[in-house]
Amino acid sequence: MEKMESIVKYDSKPLLKNPVFIEALPGIGNVGKIAGDHFATILKAEKFASLYSMNFPPQVIPDENNVIKMASNELWHARTPAGQDIIFIRGDYQGSTPEGQFILAQDIMEILLSYDVSRIITLGGYGTGQMIKEHHVYGAVSKAELKEELSGYGVEFLPGEPKAGIIGAAGLLIGMGQINGIESFCIMGDTSGYFIDHGSSIGLVKVLGKMFGVEELELEGLETEARKLTELTEKATTPEPESKENLSYFG
Amino acid sequence: MEKMESIVKYDSKPLLKNPVFIEALPGIGNVGKIAGDHFATILKAEKFASLYSMNFPPQVIPDENNVIKMASNELWHARTPAGQDIIFIRGDYQGSTPEGQFILAQDIMEILLSYDVSRIITLGGYGTGQMIKEHHVYGAVSKAELKEELSGYGVEFLPGEPKAGIIGAAGLLIGMGQINGIESFCIMGDTSGYFIDHGSSIGLVKVLGKMFGVEELELEGLETEARKLTELTEKATTPEPESKENLSYFG
Amino acid sequence: MEKMESIVKYDSKPLLKNPVFIEALPGIGNVGKIAGDHFATILKAEKFASLYSMNFPPQVIPDENNVIKMASNELWHARTPAGQDIIFIRGDYQGSTPEGQFILAQDIMEILLSYDVSRIITLGGYGTGQMIKEHHVYGAVSKAELKEELSGYGVEFLPGEPKAGIIGAAGLLIGMGQINGIESFCIMGDTSGYFIDHGSSIGLVKVLGKMFGVEELELEGLETEARKLTELTEKATTPEPESKENLSYFG
Amino acid sequence: MEKMESIVKYDSKPLLKNPVFIEALPGIGNVGKIAGDHFATILKAEKFASLYSMNFPPQVIPDENNVIKMASNELWHARTPAGQDIIFIRGDYQGSTPEGQFILAQDIMEILLSYDVSRIITLGGYGTGQMIKEHHVYGAVSKAELKEELSGYGVEFLPGEPKAGIIGAAGLLIGMGQINGIESFCIMGDTSGYFIDHGSSIGLVKVLGKMFGVEELELEGLETEARKLTELTEKATTPEPESKENLSYFG
Repeated sequence: MEKMESIVKYDSKPLLKNPVFIEALPGIGNVGKIAGDHFATILKAEKFASLYSMNFPPQVIPDENNVIKMASNELWHARTPAGQDIIFIRGDYQGSTPEGQFILAQDIMEILLSYDVSRIITLGGYGTGQMIKEHHVYGAVSKAELKEELSGYGVEFLPGEPKAGIIGAAGLLIGMGQINGIESFCIMGDTSGYFIDHGSSIGLVKVLGKMFGVEELELEGLETEARKLTELTEKATTPEPESKENLSYFG
Repeated sequence: MEKMESIVKYDSKPLLKNPVFIEALPGIGNVGKIAGDHFATILKAEKFASLYSMNFPPQVIPDENNVIKMASNELWHARTPAGQDIIFIRGDYQGSTPEGQFILAQDIMEILLSYDVSRIITLGGYGTGQMIKEHHVYGAVSKAELKEELSGYGVEFLPGEPKAGIIGAAGLLIGMGQINGIESFCIMGDTSGYFIDHGSSIGLVKVLGKMFGVEELELEGLETEARKLTELTEKATTPEPESKENLSYFG
Repeated sequence: MEKMESIVKYDSKPLLKNPVFIEALPGIGNVGKIAGDHFATILKAEKFASLYSMNFPPQVIPDENNVIKMASNELWHARTPAGQDIIFIRGDYQGSTPEGQFILAQDIMEILLSYDVSRIITLGGYGTGQMIKEHHVYGAVSKAELKEELSGYGVEFLPGEPKAGIIGAAGLLIGMGQINGIESFCIMGDTSGYFIDHGSSIGLVKVLGKMFGVEELELEGLETEARKLTELTEKATTPEPESKENLSYFG
Repeated sequence: MEKMESIVKYDSKPLLKNPVFIEALPGIGNVGKIAGDHFATILKAEKFASLYSMNFPPQVIPDENNVIKMASNELWHARTPAGQDIIFIRGDYQGSTPEGQFILAQDIMEILLSYDVSRIITLGGYGTGQMIKEHHVYGAVSKAELKEELSGYGVEFLPGEPKAGIIGAAGLLIGMGQINGIESFCIMGDTSGYFIDHGSSIGLVKVLGKMFGVEELELEGLETEARKLTELTEKATTPEPESKENLSYFG
């Protein structure tokens, strides 16, 4: 019997006009997943397909009602107030091996090409190894012409030498977009990389809001989570001051 | 030459009417394998096919007569007193990699679909990490409507948050059943996970007995094995009391 | 581009009448390889095909003339004095992963089926973990009826419980022979498993000699190598006796 | 969906007449890559295709302008002053697994066969584990007849026993050339294997220069890099002499 790497099951096949694609899978600090899930939610996105793969963990998870769900990625559809169709890919998994990630990206790309996707946007975290005081959003693009537009949304571009690789779906999907001649870019919120970072994802949501003309971003929930982390890490790293004078030694 | 993941060899092709499928492969405490093998035996099941795979260990085992047997999973057929056809999958192996488990589940699913299988039941152990005084059977279902029926057979459903994943064949086969619209569920006997647990499998056999209207369950052999384990572990964990007073310190 | 697991290159396509197949690849103590290479040599076998595979190490070896040779298995052909065609598989490699071994066995099997092979014989070592004083040849068969014939050639059959698995090509090829209805067996020379064991391979050559009616077995070279190992290991394990009296303590 | 191991994207399809192929991928001391990249540069080679693969790391690298580039190997074309077409394969990656290397070599081979390649030359390092005072170029060939010609270019051939394997693309491509009846050889600069070794690559460039009648080899840059390494390692390994007399002890 022939090996099938992926199984795609459609709940429905929505008619979409030159949709933009947004990748929101788990990654560094889960920054991209949190931002993409939030943006999909405020746009009232609906699931239309599930993608199962031999490259996900071989398991099902029973939910709170003991109804199982197989490891999967899901395709969701939304339309912006301005009428722009968007396809989101969401889920709790990326391929568990390098080869698996490549194959999944190929399978997703094939679906996107069948939908005449007009743009590929991947969301990610930019790990710095240090706590971030003020968050930034950095970009990497399939062609230099995209940078001016992105700068208008507040995306910054790091100067200097070739950067660290963008790995997994966030990298491969814009890479495959590029070689298929589709405008593609990754936007990344900077993050320490040590925590699930809602604060960093807020920056990504704001960029997406400007890009798609969405004004009500409903950021309260993300901000609350972000504050929790800030408080937690400040408590962990701030020494108990013995006196005001001593404090200066710690900056 | 093309890669073939699995080879299926049929001894015969029984005519089966909307069979129910029962998975009884090795897993936690071998609870599912022991229960399924026992239920197949009391129903006088007969082997009708063998499944060989590159995902099993690359070996043959010579038996007591030095006749070899290749690593395989086997399909067995039985009919209940009430006339219900059952297909069992039995064997000593599961796929040796995550990808291999997914491919095997796909191959098995393909066979089941060709038989118009009406239900998929997987048998497993629910590892608790603690010795079990009184065994329970827990369920996970492909759709909520199945829970009432299963409760009638004594299956319980754990409350609360999403549970630990059901891994391997016991998970993947009900997952693939679910995405193919086939009623599917896993029933699991709780077990410490540290031992081969015949005691836990008795609960599964009783549930299967009620489900299929089989009254003579011939549990003596399983009960004898279960008692052996109980005696062994009690000996190992019960301290020699010095006096009645001291005993209370140990609970 | 499609993945090709193996590449078979034919130097010639000999016309063979129901050939017997003999597997002589590396394994425990290299017992099977040494015996098979020797038997092929005394029968003046000729190479007729090479099999290259992604499951061999990705390398070429330059020979003493700096002419390269790619990692491969080779098919050789010989005809016995009695006119029986034999196909040998020889080489320095087995598949480097479990899956690779299965795929190679499938590829080899496909070739054998195309040649209407009448019997599959695999040669191996039976590792005991102990130095062997007097060598034996043990057998494992695809069907019990073969044992009487093999006993006539001096092959012995170990009594009792299921044995340790026969792994790799020596196991998979008789397993695949069995499921294709071809008489298949493995003959194994016992060996410590710690050394390349020419002494053990002599037993296999003698069995092959009786089986195929070959009388001149030209064993001198193998016997010389065997004596070298015996002398080496005796020196290493025999204590210098202080006196005759003390010697008894060492057996 | 079917698994695709490699994706080849052509920028253009140059018309080439019986091109010679030169492999210049990373390897021991990067000797082959440095030499091949240099020779391609002085011949003003142009890229005409990119090869992407599931066997490369699953990532894109943003360049100094934040424009991404997917992990790839590239095909470049040049024509020598004498009118000989050459195809180079260049890049920063080899397949990340043994199987991946074999598959990539097959994919490259298929392209070369479609171009009626007349010769396959692979460039590599010959690791000695010791610092090299005076560099040599060693050869390994698909057939003995090639040695005389190569000797004329200054290539030497190591005497004696079978050599260590030539692994990866440098080995597999001449192996596959050999089994396809194409004249193939590997030339290797000797190198310690501990450093990126520009000095060793100079030898390879000189051999290529003689082979293709290229006189202006523009070696200044390579010689500068080579001197840096020489100075660095001499500093690290030369003891501070206490006096002239003592020095002789160190040779």
